[in-house]
Amino acid sequence: MSDNPLFCVGKSVTRKDALAKASGEALYIDDYSYGGMLHAAAVRSPRPHIRIKGFDARAAEKVAGFVMLVSAADIPGKNIWPVVKEDCPFFPETESRFQGETLALVLAETRLAAREAAAKVKVLCAELPFVEDPLAALEKSAPKIYGGNNVFSSYVIKRGDVEEAIRSADAVVEGVFTTNYQVHVYLETQGAIAFPEAGGAMTVYGSLQCPYYAHDAVAQALNITHNKVRIVQRVTGGGFGGKEDVPALVAAHAAIAARKSGRPVKLVYERDEDFISMSRRHPSWTRMVYAARKDGAITACKAKYVLDGGAYATLSPIVLWRGTVHAAGPYKIENVSVESFAAATNKAPCGAYRGFGQPQICFANESLLDKLAEKLGMDPLELRLKNILRPGDKTITGQVITGSCGLEEALVSVREKSGWAKRRGRLAGEGAVKKGLGVSANYYGVGLGAGGKYLDRAGAHVSVSKDGSVYAAVGNTEMGQGAQTVLSQIAAETLNCPYDGVRMTEVDTSRVPDSGPTVASRTTLMSGNAVIDACKPLRGRIFKAARELLSAKGAPEGAMEASGGEFRAGGKTVSFSEAVKECWAQRLKMAEHGWYAAPKTSFLPENGQGDAYVTYAYSANVAEVAVDTETGAVRVEKLYAAHDLGRAVNPRLALGQMHGGALQGIGYALSENLVYKDGALLNPNMSDYVLPSSMETPEFDCSTIERPYEDGPYAAKGFGETPLIGPAPAIANAVKDACGARVPGLPLMPEKVWGRLKDKA
Amino acid sequence: MSDNPLFCVGKSVTRKDALAKASGEALYIDDYSYGGMLHAAAVRSPRPHIRIKGFDARAAEKVAGFVMLVSAADIPGKNIWPVVKEDCPFFPETESRFQGETLALVLAETRLAAREAAAKVKVLCAELPFVEDPLAALEKSAPKIYGGNNVFSSYVIKRGDVEEAIRSADAVVEGVFTTNYQVHVYLETQGAIAFPEAGGAMTVYGSLQCPYYAHDAVAQALNITHNKVRIVQRVTGGGFGGKEDVPALVAAHAAIAARKSGRPVKLVYERDEDFISMSRRHPSWTRMVYAARKDGAITACKAKYVLDGGAYATLSPIVLWRGTVHAAGPYKIENVSVESFAAATNKAPCGAYRGFGQPQICFANESLLDKLAEKLGMDPLELRLKNILRPGDKTITGQVITGSCGLEEALVSVREKSGWAKRRGRLAGEGAVKKGLGVSANYYGVGLGAGGKYLDRAGAHVSVSKDGSVYAAVGNTEMGQGAQTVLSQIAAETLNCPYDGVRMTEVDTSRVPDSGPTVASRTTLMSGNAVIDACKPLRGRIFKAARELLSAKGAPEGAMEASGGEFRAGGKTVSFSEAVKECWAQRLKMAEHGWYAAPKTSFLPENGQGDAYVTYAYSANVAEVAVDTETGAVRVEKLYAAHDLGRAVNPRLALGQMHGGALQGIGYALSENLVYKDGALLNPNMSDYVLPSSMETPEFDCSTIERPYEDGPYAAKGFGETPLIGPAPAIANAVKDACGARVPGLPLMPEKVWGRLKDKA
Repeated sequence: MSDNPLFCVGKSVTRKDALAKASGEALYIDDYSYGGMLHAAAVRSPRPHIRIKGFDARAAEKVAGFVMLVSAADIPGKNIWPVVKEDCPFFPETESRFQGETLALVLAETRLAAREAAAKVKVLCAELPFVEDPLAALEKSAPKIYGGNNVFSSYVIKRGDVEEAIRSADAVVEGVFTTNYQVHVYLETQGAIAFPEAGGAMTVYGSLQCPYYAHDAVAQALNITHNKVRIVQRVTGGGFGGKEDVPALVAAHAAIAARKSGRPVKLVYERDEDFISMSRRHPSWTRMVYAARKDGAITACKAKYVLDGGAYATLSPIVLWRGTVHAAGPYKIENVSVESFAAATNKAPCGAYRGFGQPQICFANESLLDKLAEKLGMDPLELRLKNILRPGDKTITGQVITGSCGLEEALVSVREKSGWAKRRGRLAGEGAVKKGLGVSANYYGVGLGAGGKYLDRAGAHVSVSKDGSVYAAVGNTEMGQGAQTVLSQIAAETLNCPYDGVRMTEVDTSRVPDSGPTVASRTTLMSGNAVIDACKPLRGRIFKAARELLSAKGAPEGAMEASGGEFRAGGKTVSFSEAVKECWAQRLKMAEHGWYAAPKTSFLPENGQGDAYVTYAYSANVAEVAVDTETGAVRVEKLYAAHDLGRAVNPRLALGQMHGGALQGIGYALSENLVYKDGALLNPNMSDYVLPSSMETPEFDCSTIERPYEDGPYAAKGFGETPLIGPAPAIANAVKDACGARVPGLPLMPEKVWGRLKDKA
Repeated sequence: MSDNPLFCVGKSVTRKDALAKASGEALYIDDYSYGGMLHAAAVRSPRPHIRIKGFDARAAEKVAGFVMLVSAADIPGKNIWPVVKEDCPFFPETESRFQGETLALVLAETRLAAREAAAKVKVLCAELPFVEDPLAALEKSAPKIYGGNNVFSSYVIKRGDVEEAIRSADAVVEGVFTTNYQVHVYLETQGAIAFPEAGGAMTVYGSLQCPYYAHDAVAQALNITHNKVRIVQRVTGGGFGGKEDVPALVAAHAAIAARKSGRPVKLVYERDEDFISMSRRHPSWTRMVYAARKDGAITACKAKYVLDGGAYATLSPIVLWRGTVHAAGPYKIENVSVESFAAATNKAPCGAYRGFGQPQICFANESLLDKLAEKLGMDPLELRLKNILRPGDKTITGQVITGSCGLEEALVSVREKSGWAKRRGRLAGEGAVKKGLGVSANYYGVGLGAGGKYLDRAGAHVSVSKDGSVYAAVGNTEMGQGAQTVLSQIAAETLNCPYDGVRMTEVDTSRVPDSGPTVASRTTLMSGNAVIDACKPLRGRIFKAARELLSAKGAPEGAMEASGGEFRAGGKTVSFSEAVKECWAQRLKMAEHGWYAAPKTSFLPENGQGDAYVTYAYSANVAEVAVDTETGAVRVEKLYAAHDLGRAVNPRLALGQMHGGALQGIGYALSENLVYKDGALLNPNMSDYVLPSSMETPEFDCSTIERPYEDGPYAAKGFGETPLIGPAPAIANAVKDACGARVPGLPLMPEKVWGRLKDKA
């Protein structure tokens, strides 16, 4: 874009939302209320699988402030929540498939009255047989809750001749690996306020990642056209994927209630409701085989990958797809066979969580790779270096890696920083505490790729005010990841305006056309490119005006330097706001819409071959752990990570992503353990579901590798999810290094580690 | 734009806002409230001119619910309301210049508490000498309230040699004419809600015509950049110019209060407050001379035109400018001298009211023209026909009329419809009731012209959703005139989409760049052209997709017919929504910003010569009146009008504009009479300020003349104000025809008519 050195992109400017969030000025959905507003509370299914016969609301109606009950009969439109598969109703009509499912809403004048009344609504129902375990769900004898086989989706990747490669290999390793749920536990629970507008229109304000999903859902629920729905994102207290699809359901519920009552309706979840009914990371089961020559060259990978999808398909098909595509790890392997399944069970639907199907299978492949190294008698990091994807290599889908691939540098970086060669296998513990190092590598397809290619486009609106201040609106949301900041930097850089002069307006579906979801580390790439597209014509006008003003000041024609919100030539200076004022005096168009559609991707269902993603981010992790062999407790002492993200638009924010993601990866690896029994969730709270705290935070040594991605905004790729993916297998491998225990199931709870040690002993 | 016949423009489709307004679904500013919201009430100046010494709020503070007093000291920014001249503070600091001026606000938890407390605030002050009469204000001896001479603005138009032309004329007439105030009496009084946002930003929702004026005011009052201010228009219950400038003051007051309190603040005026302090039409005084040859050719016009501006300049300079430019009427006159003055007086500032300085002077010139006809012994309608502007003629500013000038047709139309030739001077009365016919002609420069040329630009945003429904946003407001409808028709026509599929979003300054005010009959022209500009590239993509789909259906290449939301070729049909779906499947950009800047205009201050406006609307009126000669009461029995508006985008709405404007003109002519005494307004209510009701509504016979304006959207010009301008002089001329009484001052109250009859008798 610019002949000048970058002045804003690549700088760690202060994040746009920092002060408002730190000071308490930021208003979240529950901070808003409107005159005449009602409060909604959910009536939930008492058991994992029931036939619904009706509701007895007589006791509820006696609660002071009770207004009405809202259920499936009150839906003006089609009672199907529009996600990938259309199998989930907004409110179930005759059958509910998991304990905690929202069956109806009580509306009341106050929140307390709504909750009290909702608790008093009796669900008249009959219990049905249910299934909890995904492998059991795939058995013929299982109760059927989806189709004839409880399979939401299934994919294959076939490449070369995997059986022959295994037969002829020098070394073959095999393992079964499992992972458990992971819950987002965002600081702010789900919530929305629906505000009925004239003419049957509806505006919904919400805490959400993906306003266009909510837009589709509300339009369908109310049977109104898209231009009668407005979804406005409020400041959102964390998402991590947990506010990808499910806020659409919350929004639709609020909207249906607002339509019926004719009043604004607020629906905000309590923490336990959020735990019980909202999405979470899929538990997984993977059987995997790696085959290699004795020089360490991996010749085959065979995998069967099963995800526990829960009661409805929701995002399982695309979560599974991403996991499938990345199943064998970031390695060049000629012979591959991957089969994957998302199974239906009678538990809350699983969905998006940072990493989106990759952390599960990465735990499997990176654990198994260490086993392979052990079998080959090789250093596991060197084994990886021997096999990793480099430019020109092909992924397991046959996609040729072109440019922007910094995995080798990343692995070398963590190897050097961790002192790997001298320290692995040789770390001294103390008494019963043993220490070790473990490595993992991974890659991450940026954006939606072929799994969601029609959604891989984004719009932006940029408007330059008379005083030189800038409004920008995009369709991707800020949820703490720094989108507003990074996109403001991109706008400032492109327009040559001061960073402080850019303000992102709230994301509002009526401002920017459907720009797809805010997921898959796609915001910087997609919205960033759309912002540049909007800024370019404005830049042209502003730069022309600046040249005219410089000429008028006597500056010679020719080279003009533009940076930092100033234009300079021949010792004369014109500020951005002066140039803008001149544009306005000339009555030029000072607002533009920008648009970006990602390059085409492909995926053949019959063999899983194609260019799955437009580009990939790469990362490597080394974990340094201490294991108390008397208790099995694992502690991560240090985490070394390196990430190839094309370019860090804001290095400090990139570091924040690395730290935050890694800590979630540590929680995933060690302590986050959601427990179901008899179809009921036993620990829907933050005491019994254990997140890592500052006490569990290790010393981080994270760095960026910048291999420019030429189609990215200022060469950036997305990478926000990769930091979470690598830590768990690196930790598991480090635990093995420390004490010899290989635990093939996450989380590595003390009792599991201790059990393995005991088995070994 | 289209090779096909128009399917939507030119049709009387149902107006977009009809159902919501008729059903009560439409929400006005006072229908909204927010959690934590405070209510504001104004503390007003008790006398027309005071030195402010302070406030005694002790009694007010005792009112339950009192929160705080807000005054000039609380303004974070510059205490100057940014209008044309920067002479009016948001809150006066040491001096207040009219009775009823807002000196401070009381904030309280309820509206009643705010009003009660505001009434208890004592204004500590000393009275200063004041001036009520504009002619007296221009005297040297007058107390000075603006500059050294109480002149806000003054203009001249000099053309030819007017004194010589008068000396050599065959006939010369002279007269002094006066007009009184006219108050808008919109159904909804002024109101705003300010909502403080994080980071010092402010959103203000309001009942207003000109959100960008409020935008400038709030930014200045709070000392924040433009991108931190959002002004959102709520459904607005009438404007007529009364919500042009003053809502900016109301918005700034609410914003200052919200900033100080940190809470949302609602400020809604009571009817009496609105009467006392808000803008109204300027009273005027005009001395005018016409000279003519005996064949009726007007050779000269000389005028002195004085407007009573009130206490602050506000819009007086541009109201005066428009009146000045149109001073001599729509006639070709070689020798012209016009001098005009806007004088400062100690009364509420006058501002915009439909017609904007033209009704006043039109009453003068069209009354005097009848006197000229009488002197020449000519029929007054034929005298007009002899002198009117036709294409190729020059206005008094030397502007050549090019195309789109239908005044001759308009005059002929009302002549024929009224049976003028046979009925004028010959209408039979009954007893003391005498009947007569009177004519008037006028023209109206569309848009802001040279008086506000930097503002004559507008933006639009058009977005086509996946389902084929369309959002459009513009910067000009709906205030009952039908803007949403007409602009939706223009969008539908240009995109070839069904009219019902277009929805205009609320006007929001963050959606569309500063598009100037919604005044001067400029919306259809300016925003209409901007909408077309936004639609054109979308049209290109949609039409291309439609052709592709038609080809896929086997339709032959070549001509494609597009109308009514369908594309047809070779017997095959593709709907708009199918074509849109195809565009989305191709991931095309489906939102665009449009922009329109009006052609250049000019006005030389030294002689008032130049191209004042881009084009003109023309109209002719014939009034048929009955005068009760025993009481002086005048009744308009029938009004014939014809308006050249280029093209009626929606004939029914155009008719509505004609009827509504004419009825306001009748009120202006006959009954609307605001009375000041000792600097105090005596009749600030709807009982004593008499608006015409359905009882006073005559039979209307209005028609449109369509002389296409090639730079207009589908050839339309604006014309919304012209219907108000002509009736008053036509009525006055008809009164003269009926009973011989020439009353040179509006309104023609019975006592004035009766007085003239008595003088004559």
